[in-house]
Amino acid sequence: MTIETISEVTAHGGVQGVYRHASAATNTDMIFSLFMPPQVERGELLPVLWYLSGLTCTHANVTEKGEYRAACAEAGMIFIAPDTSPRGDDVPDDPEAMWDFGQGAGFYLDATQPPWSRHFNMATYIAKELPSLVADHFPIDLARQGICGHSMGGHGALTLALKHPGQFRSVSAFAPIVAPRQVPWGRKALRHYLGDDDAAWRAHDSVALIEDGARLDKILIDIGEGDPFLDKELRPELLEKACRDAGIPFELRRHAGYDHSYYFISTFMADHIRWHAARLARE
Amino acid sequence: MTIETISEVTAHGGVQGVYRHASAATNTDMIFSLFMPPQVERGELLPVLWYLSGLTCTHANVTEKGEYRAACAEAGMIFIAPDTSPRGDDVPDDPEAMWDFGQGAGFYLDATQPPWSRHFNMATYIAKELPSLVADHFPIDLARQGICGHSMGGHGALTLALKHPGQFRSVSAFAPIVAPRQVPWGRKALRHYLGDDDAAWRAHDSVALIEDGARLDKILIDIGEGDPFLDKELRPELLEKACRDAGIPFELRRHAGYDHSYYFISTFMADHIRWHAARLARE
Repeated sequence: MTIETISEVTAHGGVQGVYRHASAATNTDMIFSLFMPPQVERGELLPVLWYLSGLTCTHANVTEKGEYRAACAEAGMIFIAPDTSPRGDDVPDDPEAMWDFGQGAGFYLDATQPPWSRHFNMATYIAKELPSLVADHFPIDLARQGICGHSMGGHGALTLALKHPGQFRSVSAFAPIVAPRQVPWGRKALRHYLGDDDAAWRAHDSVALIEDGARLDKILIDIGEGDPFLDKELRPELLEKACRDAGIPFELRRHAGYDHSYYFISTFMADHIRWHAARLARE
Repeated sequence: MTIETISEVTAHGGVQGVYRHASAATNTDMIFSLFMPPQVERGELLPVLWYLSGLTCTHANVTEKGEYRAACAEAGMIFIAPDTSPRGDDVPDDPEAMWDFGQGAGFYLDATQPPWSRHFNMATYIAKELPSLVADHFPIDLARQGICGHSMGGHGALTLALKHPGQFRSVSAFAPIVAPRQVPWGRKALRHYLGDDDAAWRAHDSVALIEDGARLDKILIDIGEGDPFLDKELRPELLEKACRDAGIPFELRRHAGYDHSYYFISTFMADHIRWHAARLARE
């Protein structure tokens, strides 16, 4: 497969690119951004951190506001930000015309229900198709993949890491949805994308995956105590309990005053990058 | 005078605010952003770095994409980003309907020509009115003001520092316009705002100000060699020569590959903040 370069700009000693390609998983074109750090000049394969964005976002939000490039340039880390859903006139969208479902809200799963199942296959896209594609075009060490995300993207990072622990060797999240089966955003998405099948729902719910036996080495989560979605949509205490019951090391850092925005994410981004870099270092 | 809080968000241990106030200089409401670093809790007055933005920008561009908060939080530096012009339905705009003049392009001078002179008084606004206003509301040490800017805002930082060297103790710029009398963007703005009066033009042109006797301790400038405006609009060699002839220490750093965007600015922002912080340290 080929990729088309939309833009490449020098930044922090590396190159911030934006690329488009045809996706077999989503049956649409997809856009992602990729920061290549200056260590590319050494000619070795580099570790990668996947960043999955939240509701309404594209690749552009974190690319402009995430403040990740300085830390990636220091750590020699590739940073990839995919889109949050397929898009286009032919792609179905939320019949309620809200912002929490449909285009911009793929929830990082493979839909089973029409009309969503033709395009909304973000789990296959993120975990399978896109890593293979980018490794064909960039010097990425697929044995050193970390994954993180924000809000809906934190849900994506956690569930994909729980389902593919051999692929994603480190996982962290900013203000993630941890139990979509139990919160309004999640229940709306799971009902439309997966139908009324609780077994299917459990396979895309971090808390349920852990209850059902999935395991990870460690999870790092930052969350703002001023986050307006904390109690209704995020509920990190549910994941804390599941990890405690399962014996999964779980670091939950609550920060007074911080909200759900990129002002929160960018504050802790460099710390997450260093954390992933340490865990993805060559043995 | 009073200010209205539009938003205040916790970020990098401090508070990123956006504020609105009535301006006597511009006869409009004006909006600015201000980052208050965590050192505010010590109860002392803090140094401030003014950041003047380029053509088409508002306070929002650098606030979202400038990557300044981490370095300001480390240095204990307040960071203020004003708007680039008065705005509003009553404010005249470019008759040619371009983006390089009128609203979003105040060029940091006081216009003398109608219809511009009623509102376009950004020199008085930035150097007089706004410092006085913010010092009434925030713990700002007016004896420790630095100023920097990008493109048209670099022009503003340089000319205001040359005209008020006792007020702005440090000055730096990213890809500044240094000789507006000699380049297309500048000539268009100076002609409309000031009329055909070369003496007035010289008072708003860094190179001419230095030729006419203005002096500064030192100037730091970063510029990208891939900047598409380098040869036609920026022409840093003109300022380099003027500083050499006048004996002003001038550090011009040319960076291969970088363009005119915030990817360039954000790469070198932390370095500029540390440079200003060192020069604004208490003796």
